[in-house]
Amino acid sequence: MPPDAILQGLDTGDVSALARAISLVENQRGGFERVLTHIHERLGRGGARRIGITGPPGAGKSTLTEQLIRSFRGVGLKVAVVAVDPTSPFSGGALLGDRIRMETASTDPGVFIRSMATRGSIGGLATTTEEVCDILEAFGFERILIETVGVGQTELDVARSAETTVLVLVPESGDGIQTLKAGVMEVADVYVINKADRPGAEKMQREIEIMLGIRRGNAYRHVGAHHGPDRRMAVGRSGPKGLPDGRGQAVEAASTQPAWEPVVLQTIAPKGEGVPALIDALDRHRAYLEASGRLALRRRERLAERTRAAVNRAVQQWVWEGSGAEAILTQALDDMTAGTRSPYEVAAEILEQAKSGAPR
Amino acid sequence: MPPDAILQGLDTGDVSALARAISLVENQRGGFERVLTHIHERLGRGGARRIGITGPPGAGKSTLTEQLIRSFRGVGLKVAVVAVDPTSPFSGGALLGDRIRMETASTDPGVFIRSMATRGSIGGLATTTEEVCDILEAFGFERILIETVGVGQTELDVARSAETTVLVLVPESGDGIQTLKAGVMEVADVYVINKADRPGAEKMQREIEIMLGIRRGNAYRHVGAHHGPDRRMAVGRSGPKGLPDGRGQAVEAASTQPAWEPVVLQTIAPKGEGVPALIDALDRHRAYLEASGRLALRRRERLAERTRAAVNRAVQQWVWEGSGAEAILTQALDDMTAGTRSPYEVAAEILEQAKSGAPR
Repeated sequence: MPPDAILQGLDTGDVSALARAISLVENQRGGFERVLTHIHERLGRGGARRIGITGPPGAGKSTLTEQLIRSFRGVGLKVAVVAVDPTSPFSGGALLGDRIRMETASTDPGVFIRSMATRGSIGGLATTTEEVCDILEAFGFERILIETVGVGQTELDVARSAETTVLVLVPESGDGIQTLKAGVMEVADVYVINKADRPGAEKMQREIEIMLGIRRGNAYRHVGAHHGPDRRMAVGRSGPKGLPDGRGQAVEAASTQPAWEPVVLQTIAPKGEGVPALIDALDRHRAYLEASGRLALRRRERLAERTRAAVNRAVQQWVWEGSGAEAILTQALDDMTAGTRSPYEVAAEILEQAKSGAPR
Repeated sequence: MPPDAILQGLDTGDVSALARAISLVENQRGGFERVLTHIHERLGRGGARRIGITGPPGAGKSTLTEQLIRSFRGVGLKVAVVAVDPTSPFSGGALLGDRIRMETASTDPGVFIRSMATRGSIGGLATTTEEVCDILEAFGFERILIETVGVGQTELDVARSAETTVLVLVPESGDGIQTLKAGVMEVADVYVINKADRPGAEKMQREIEIMLGIRRGNAYRHVGAHHGPDRRMAVGRSGPKGLPDGRGQAVEAASTQPAWEPVVLQTIAPKGEGVPALIDALDRHRAYLEASGRLALRRRERLAERTRAAVNRAVQQWVWEGSGAEAILTQALDDMTAGTRSPYEVAAEILEQAKSGAPR
């Protein structure tokens, strides 16, 4: 399908054009930037929301995603799922999406499920995921679920490309808490203890809340219970989304509103227990983002980040495709192996060569 | 310490110069490429080996590392440990190294332990880790242990920057096996089931071996047991190090030797049980890499990769530091937020601007 046909298909709601547009973006093939530019004006207009769902393998993310799809469809919302499996470089990350697809067995045109292959993602997986979500949003999907396996940095970056990040854990996962202790913990907006009918759910909830510094009252806590909004909004600790480059801090400083206090809740996904409370938490987090001005600020920050990523991608393509860089590298390999030239000297030569060949 | 003093200190074996050189490289501060160029000719000369150790939190990696340090020191080898914790963007990744340091309580100048802060690693964590290891090798360390927490893609990339990758698991870690099933499994050369005195060690060993496609004989299997070298060398399956970009395949095709069949063994790290078998497996893997020609091939591949990474880093620095790129971005933010310009249009403008300002 030529790029023009893809653009036209996107405009007329053709699902096969959607699939092709996503492939184009995912593989960064010719014309992908044109597609993304074409749809850009439609973004951030409607009330589309992106929800990241992450957690260790076996935490029940797919079943929970399934329940969210059902809930959203129940109120007529169009739902897309982007399943990203960065822990699976060899299988190409197709596992998650397949599982959800199988469970949904969906012929519902209001549901779209896409697995992201993670091989050779040039511009970074989080950026590519965001771009795929852009296309889905522009196509009219109102809830976009970004599901990833694992709690490493790559996975968290992907999950954080959503507005709201949900971390799913299970009571018996000792690894869960250990990982959390290692600092991963503070990245989510909503914490779900799934399979809460297993022993240790209460204990885990307590541990997580202590770790997050959430003050505890005497409120009766049952499956799906959560703190009242008054308490959640009232805590002045710094936001959980502080990013290493200080972007989070900028957002923080620009807002006079208190930070979001993470919600910890319990679910039993196959039975749907706790799912309404999760939906409610998602709604409240979105409302918080809007009321605090953080949604608009984050959109700006994301656009700046996206532009940076696009520049870095383009400049790399330019230097490698244009000016005989590969030839210089190949010729220099013997010298580098012999130790007479370093990779940094060769890199400098390649860059100089590219610059001197640049058109004025 | 000025760069010249650092270079001189590295040449004379000054440990404070070593620490400063590592900081320089880690933060990619001015002069870091000069330091790396300076030491380049000393690399790949001696018999220095790099061993990556990864696994989920709580698998006992630090204790095992401790045992390896003891063994290597016992035969007079100088040992460096680079502890990288990519799951810990907020704590700066200092946990692992501190733990090992605490346990070693070492005043032994033949041991050097360094934690890698993972914040804002521009060129990618795996590249930076390799560069730090280069400095350690050039300084005279003969065994370099690269320890990372987690089994996500970032962690595996870091562990794979070593010549030999060890994946440490524990019997009760259900997550372990689940993660393995997700495809992470095939990245290690040696699999260690640590805490093998806990229930389920035998079962886990069986499961891993089946998953790896290792044929099983009737050999008696005890703590520290491993397959004989005849069988391990005889299996013709494709190598476990096939990288997404096809580098692994190239190495594979260029060698006429059979691929390495991963070793699975059991340890009880605090007691040192199984550690000699682990050392033996490491030795045999190194011998295999040398005999098969893969060591030389991989060194070439790594140098090419390093050069690519250095080019990409340099070209990004050039475009962002030189030519008013940030100013263009800042001015365009309102348009992008309003939807009238896309990040890709702005990126193209920034790149054009950089190129037109490039010196001939």
